Amino acid sequence: MTYSDKLINYYETVARECVLGLSLDCVIFGFHDTRLKVLLVRWRGTKEWCLPGGFIYKTESVDAAAGRVLYERTGLTQLFLQQFHLFGDAVRYDVENTWQRQKMPMPFGSGTWPSRTISMGYYALVDYTKVTPTADFLSDECDWFDVFELPSLLYDHRQIINVALKTLRLQLNWQPIGLNLMPEKFTIPELQRLYEAVLGRPLDARNFHKKISSLSILTRLNERRTGGAHKSPYLYQFDLTNYQKALVNGNLIFV
Amino acid sequence: MTYSDKLINYYETVARECVLGLSLDCVIFGFHDTRLKVLLVRWRGTKEWCLPGGFIYKTESVDAAAGRVLYERTGLTQLFLQQFHLFGDAVRYDVENTWQRQKMPMPFGSGTWPSRTISMGYYALVDYTKVTPTADFLSDECDWFDVFELPSLLYDHRQIINVALKTLRLQLNWQPIGLNLMPEKFTIPELQRLYEAVLGRPLDARNFHKKISSLSILTRLNERRTGGAHKSPYLYQFDLTNYQKALVNGNLIFV
Repeated sequence: MTYSDKLINYYETVARECVLGLSLDCVIFGFHDTRLKVLLVRWRGTKEWCLPGGFIYKTESVDAAAGRVLYERTGLTQLFLQQFHLFGDAVRYDVENTWQRQKMPMPFGSGTWPSRTISMGYYALVDYTKVTPTADFLSDECDWFDVFELPSLLYDHRQIINVALKTLRLQLNWQPIGLNLMPEKFTIPELQRLYEAVLGRPLDARNFHKKISSLSILTRLNERRTGGAHKSPYLYQFDLTNYQKALVNGNLIFV
Repeated sequence: MTYSDKLINYYETVARECVLGLSLDCVIFGFHDTRLKVLLVRWRGTKEWCLPGGFIYKTESVDAAAGRVLYERTGLTQLFLQQFHLFGDAVRYDVENTWQRQKMPMPFGSGTWPSRTISMGYYALVDYTKVTPTADFLSDECDWFDVFELPSLLYDHRQIINVALKTLRLQLNWQPIGLNLMPEKFTIPELQRLYEAVLGRPLDARNFHKKISSLSILTRLNERRTGGAHKSPYLYQFDLTNYQKALVNGNLIFV
């Protein structure tokens, strides 16, 4: 079976077994080397990138479908995974142009599938070091990109990432963003880099340290980060009880 | 044409002209007489209540459809209207039991409409005094209910209201909840009642006054609320610039 045949076969199966006209797109955020990253897939046989996504089986909940897609692309279960926006514009993108860029053998909406697809946006926060980016048969490659240095994206996926990032910023003070994006142990300057990466602007180191200390959300370990040019800083981990309390109180605000 | 024929006709039109398998439900919040209210409709010929809702025309954005439903039930345009959750469980409620309670002439999913409907939840904040609750041909009545004294509800609409209320509480410090639910002029105790109604618990009057004053989000008018048993309190309105600033800073927190 040629790839083109497989593709037609795949979409026929989707149209038969999945909820019609509804898809989901996942914005998977990671944090690495002081930068906020997002996981993308490269459409097979092209140079076009897009978000990992998929369809919902007729007997599957939409949330479960999102969990499945994330597991398939990252190898992780029990991810921090949230709905953030339904992308429901009547015309979301130039469909014909998109098919051409994807080198699709047939127009997607030509069979039983409706010409319009509404997409539920999810965002996930993952520990970058634990992810094994994994392509599927629709894609040649799955890789991380700096959220501020994205390639050309298919569909309306750039807008979807923008809305996800805006949501992340709004939720920074009452969702466990730090807990889910940081590795288990980290230094205070490393945590500051995360907040700066999400907010897209520098924070004052002294104020950051003061604010974090006043909330008692970190426990200092008897270990230091070694190997840097400077004096080895202590490693910390989150104090889950106090961290949760700070989130409930909406106290993790850095303005 | 009998009502039963009209109903069948209506759903045939929906299946032909609307996005298949997707609906929307609107939780419309108002504030009246110190209580948080939600707008419900009573299903025609029954004692069963549910949320106002509807379907999305094939050429209409989902957000526009929500605005249309709200306009039809309240007479208001330019409402504060937000997506809050996609209700996408594979089985959302007992379909057969629901048809019977609705006294429907036919099972809804028997034609071209799929047996499963996924629903996008929106919440709206309205000035109670400006709403004219309006029933449609599917309902005998449209009326306000205290959010803590709801009648028996069709579908999974009690859960939808619970999730909407939880969202409202989470967003109290960074969405213009007060601005949209309060009338133009109000006293500080009246504003306190709103926060108490949303949070479902009393707040300390002195701390509330102190917090509100420290944010400079209110302008005192040269008018007083008269007719009460006590000394006539001053009326206030929001200072939009400072209110917006407080929201951006996430400062409207009453813990």
